[in-house]
Amino acid sequence: MSKNLRYAVVGAGNGGQSMAGDLVLRGFNVVGIYDPFPEAIEYVQRQGGIRMIGDLREGFAEISRVSTNVEDIVLDADIIMVVVPAYAHEFMANALAPVVKSHQIIVLNPGCIGGTMVFRSILQSRGAECPILAETNILLYATRIVGPGVVGIQDIKRWLGVAALPASDTPKVVEALKPAFSQIEPMDNVLETGLNNTNPMTHVATTILNWGRTKSEGQAANFEFSEWVTEPVKPIVKKVDHERMAVIEALGIRGITNEEFFEISYGGKKRDVVQRVGEVLPSSTIVPDRYITEDVPMGLVPIASLADALEVKTPLTKILIDFACVIKDTDYWTEGRTLDKLGLQGLDAAGIRDAVQ
Amino acid sequence: MSKNLRYAVVGAGNGGQSMAGDLVLRGFNVVGIYDPFPEAIEYVQRQGGIRMIGDLREGFAEISRVSTNVEDIVLDADIIMVVVPAYAHEFMANALAPVVKSHQIIVLNPGCIGGTMVFRSILQSRGAECPILAETNILLYATRIVGPGVVGIQDIKRWLGVAALPASDTPKVVEALKPAFSQIEPMDNVLETGLNNTNPMTHVATTILNWGRTKSEGQAANFEFSEWVTEPVKPIVKKVDHERMAVIEALGIRGITNEEFFEISYGGKKRDVVQRVGEVLPSSTIVPDRYITEDVPMGLVPIASLADALEVKTPLTKILIDFACVIKDTDYWTEGRTLDKLGLQGLDAAGIRDAVQ
Repeated sequence: MSKNLRYAVVGAGNGGQSMAGDLVLRGFNVVGIYDPFPEAIEYVQRQGGIRMIGDLREGFAEISRVSTNVEDIVLDADIIMVVVPAYAHEFMANALAPVVKSHQIIVLNPGCIGGTMVFRSILQSRGAECPILAETNILLYATRIVGPGVVGIQDIKRWLGVAALPASDTPKVVEALKPAFSQIEPMDNVLETGLNNTNPMTHVATTILNWGRTKSEGQAANFEFSEWVTEPVKPIVKKVDHERMAVIEALGIRGITNEEFFEISYGGKKRDVVQRVGEVLPSSTIVPDRYITEDVPMGLVPIASLADALEVKTPLTKILIDFACVIKDTDYWTEGRTLDKLGLQGLDAAGIRDAVQ
Repeated sequence: MSKNLRYAVVGAGNGGQSMAGDLVLRGFNVVGIYDPFPEAIEYVQRQGGIRMIGDLREGFAEISRVSTNVEDIVLDADIIMVVVPAYAHEFMANALAPVVKSHQIIVLNPGCIGGTMVFRSILQSRGAECPILAETNILLYATRIVGPGVVGIQDIKRWLGVAALPASDTPKVVEALKPAFSQIEPMDNVLETGLNNTNPMTHVATTILNWGRTKSEGQAANFEFSEWVTEPVKPIVKKVDHERMAVIEALGIRGITNEEFFEISYGGKKRDVVQRVGEVLPSSTIVPDRYITEDVPMGLVPIASLADALEVKTPLTKILIDFACVIKDTDYWTEGRTLDKLGLQGLDAAGIRDAVQ
């Protein structure tokens, strides 16, 4: 039965193209891929699909429907995989509001912190039909677009947490996704998925503590993330992760440390870098902008906001946010997902947990 | 007459050895060099002086008295050049208290912020004779110990601000120093010298924003400071320097921007790296610890403390201090030179200026 479920993929960046290509090559029914930016899908359209390279998924994934019109893509879908950076969640919720149906399942990959809450709020305010809304704790793939229409999957996580909003919908979502994604496991609620995305913990500190080498004399960095998490960086990452765990503990939900996450997701092994395609440089030669622009406002800011509500001290988290504001000349404290924005202001730990059940 | 003034050099690090060697090679009377650590002077003692290499000062500077006994060195001196990191000022003031004479001139190279105030306070509390106390705004040399007993001067500043505490002593100090150091110019008071040391502005931000490459897999960094002040770092250094200038403006004293400082000190030219000596690595292959341990507590902390008193906003300065506290697991807010420690608490701008006149 599950092979007949129709998947639509929303977002044609690294994650979206990997998701679409992976599903097609494994024989699942992908009705199409959507992205609002023509340049994001140009090559996929031109060649009628995505070329997948690397040891994990190799081959040509044929995808006939590739469009900048979201309705074309999601109309016939049972499951809509929203695979975009968290700062695009508002845009995508607004794009989907007029076309989404109540029998469909929307899965945010990932939700970061509060993705489904933001989605639900927008769909409700737009008077949209209310689909089943779920999110994963992190992107399924370690992956990069390595050339035009060419994707290289470096690794696929062996464990992926998923939860629906409200949490009572989680079993339905797990049942629908399990055939295609055997590694998914239900979490208690979307706070557990959101707060157990460890990307902000590693990305932000590592980026700031290597900011000097992001560019030199006009040249982009020679960037390989794992090599930038050096000995001097590791204890800082650990400290900020401890602050996240303290917030999780005060909230009374399940927490996974950064080390545990790495172990259960990748078996603790270092990922190989995907080969280059001809002269095309892998996109990972530059530090992804979203290591700040996604991970600060949708990761560290909600953690700091929860910490304040729960009276937990998170000094390093706040320093990293403040520093990111200076570096990017942006007020992430205002832009980010605070409890106010998530509709959780004024609640205690039990009240916050109740709001996502 | 001035060639007959006897100089004692206190501190046998990069700066102290350079100062002693430079004075000797230029024919000035150096009575000796003192350092409390035997290992700091071992090679200088053994070879009876300092070998100077590089284009600016080359040759062997004979120094007969090299001792861990401060009295031996400073007893016969007219001018005591204290060339140590600012965190050693308290130690040196306590060491000099029993032996210093009222006719002597003590010059801190540099004072960082409040060096002479700390010195005066210790000498007074110990009931010492009160010498003339002065400080420069920065170390005279860009220099490194490049091997045992071997010093390489990269550059010598073309401008050096000096002021005494009280400021009424400044003319005497300038008269005494001018024959040996033609580049010195009087500043109005020790707040002007202290606040126009631009090291904390460049060192702290640059070190934190390159922290990830201070060490990798057990290997020390391949460190060349000017190469770490990359395009992404420059605007951050500029922002923190703007904050310093805002404090200076609120205080109503003379300010020199980082760019102006670089121009008047070095004529805007990039300094050459001093050659290696055989297989001895230049000490600059590692990031000097004092880029945090001196420049945060004796540079950024007093600026932030002044800013609070004068109601000037210095958010980036405070972020850098906070981050340094995390990185070094040290409370620089407590250790550093706050207005309380400098005896300036509760004063307004005019009161603070009066206190150093």
